[in-house]
Amino acid sequence: MIRLVLLRHGESDWNRENRFTGWTDVDLSEKGLDEARAAGDLLRDEGYTFDIAFTSVLKRAIRTLWIALDRMDLMWLPVVRSWRLNERHYGALQGLNKADTAARYGDDQVLVWRRSYAVRPPELERSDERWPGHDRRYREIPEEDLPLTECLDDTVHRVLPFWHETIVPALRSGCRVLVVAHGNSIRALVKYLDGISDEAIVGLNIPTGIPLVYELDEELRPQRHYYLGDPEAAEAAAEAVARQGRAGA
Amino acid sequence: MIRLVLLRHGESDWNRENRFTGWTDVDLSEKGLDEARAAGDLLRDEGYTFDIAFTSVLKRAIRTLWIALDRMDLMWLPVVRSWRLNERHYGALQGLNKADTAARYGDDQVLVWRRSYAVRPPELERSDERWPGHDRRYREIPEEDLPLTECLDDTVHRVLPFWHETIVPALRSGCRVLVVAHGNSIRALVKYLDGISDEAIVGLNIPTGIPLVYELDEELRPQRHYYLGDPEAAEAAAEAVARQGRAGA
Repeated sequence: MIRLVLLRHGESDWNRENRFTGWTDVDLSEKGLDEARAAGDLLRDEGYTFDIAFTSVLKRAIRTLWIALDRMDLMWLPVVRSWRLNERHYGALQGLNKADTAARYGDDQVLVWRRSYAVRPPELERSDERWPGHDRRYREIPEEDLPLTECLDDTVHRVLPFWHETIVPALRSGCRVLVVAHGNSIRALVKYLDGISDEAIVGLNIPTGIPLVYELDEELRPQRHYYLGDPEAAEAAAEAVARQGRAGA
Repeated sequence: MIRLVLLRHGESDWNRENRFTGWTDVDLSEKGLDEARAAGDLLRDEGYTFDIAFTSVLKRAIRTLWIALDRMDLMWLPVVRSWRLNERHYGALQGLNKADTAARYGDDQVLVWRRSYAVRPPELERSDERWPGHDRRYREIPEEDLPLTECLDDTVHRVLPFWHETIVPALRSGCRVLVVAHGNSIRALVKYLDGISDEAIVGLNIPTGIPLVYELDEELRPQRHYYLGDPEAAEAAAEAVARQGRAGA
């Protein structure tokens, strides 16, 4: 039986301010730091260990991973960072808060962007300083692969090549894999693993800071999955994410 | 002009207790944390940036790197960890303090182990829990490559393949490289780069937490090198290391 652990980063400063974050490199809040410590402690206390970790190039995921590795005494673990595990890119909405966005685009339109699988928020201009092409960490990525905006379907399509080309070979070679990523990049993996429909995935909320364990067979087909720790805590955390109504955090 | 930055980790808990550390995975002391922060701030304030970082699989180096990356806002940087950048392995002396060691082996013998380039301390038995073969992080390394003890010459010979096979290609591809490592693995690089004799290298002390900059030509031949920041501080730090009289920390 092959085990894979997915972990969504803890709360960020912009989660708290209810702003569309996307690829903006916002740090963890104090609560987010606590969540990361708790996740690491839980994994350690439940006897989990790992051979390799994958994360995004955004510091809220990387710091969550660092803290968890520290708590598990696994700072030596190989870590692979990839832009493909980044959060969904929220286009021209990045940096706006809920009130700004509703004022500019109307409540109904905001709801469509949040609740639909394939409708993209407005694109960034390439001249916009928020466009990833201006950020050195993305310099080796072909310009045509760098998003101006993304719907969840776009996120799925850029996450899956990383799954197939990098995570799957690690799992097949016997590595115990930890993935620390974001609400929507984890949704992308969960959608693929469990064959969830376009409609249903939008309503599936991944709680922050609670390890999600997949048990896979030899063909990497999921046999079961569960959140570590208190099931009620996981459910409450997922509901809190849902209430926040923010798919792009 | 190609620039390479070498950084020795900050003070560890065992530096303070004056024990032979070697491959023991001891954490930074409070002073070591401060040194790491200061090194990151100095690199940032002097306008340095990087494309890739290399470090050992020991947490005092990894944490120094993490802190420096955080201060430079470079948490997204690719990081490659390798056992080849570990501290010199101190064999059966690992864990002993200066007084224990002198009592067991005599002051003169201890001086020989510290001051000579090619005399090894007593070997560990493979059954000893301190032998790296018992530690999961070294599981993919052929048993014959795992040290039972090392003289500085041994350290040089296991560091240099990593220089040639991994760091050199990164430098040649135009990457700005940061190496965060240990007193003796940095000595190994400095010995090679500057063609220092076996006798002279033993007396060369690398201060903790002060970035050492090498300027290399196209053929990666050193043109000059210098410590960043206040030259007197670097000299004082190197003298403090020398006074400590501990090559294996």
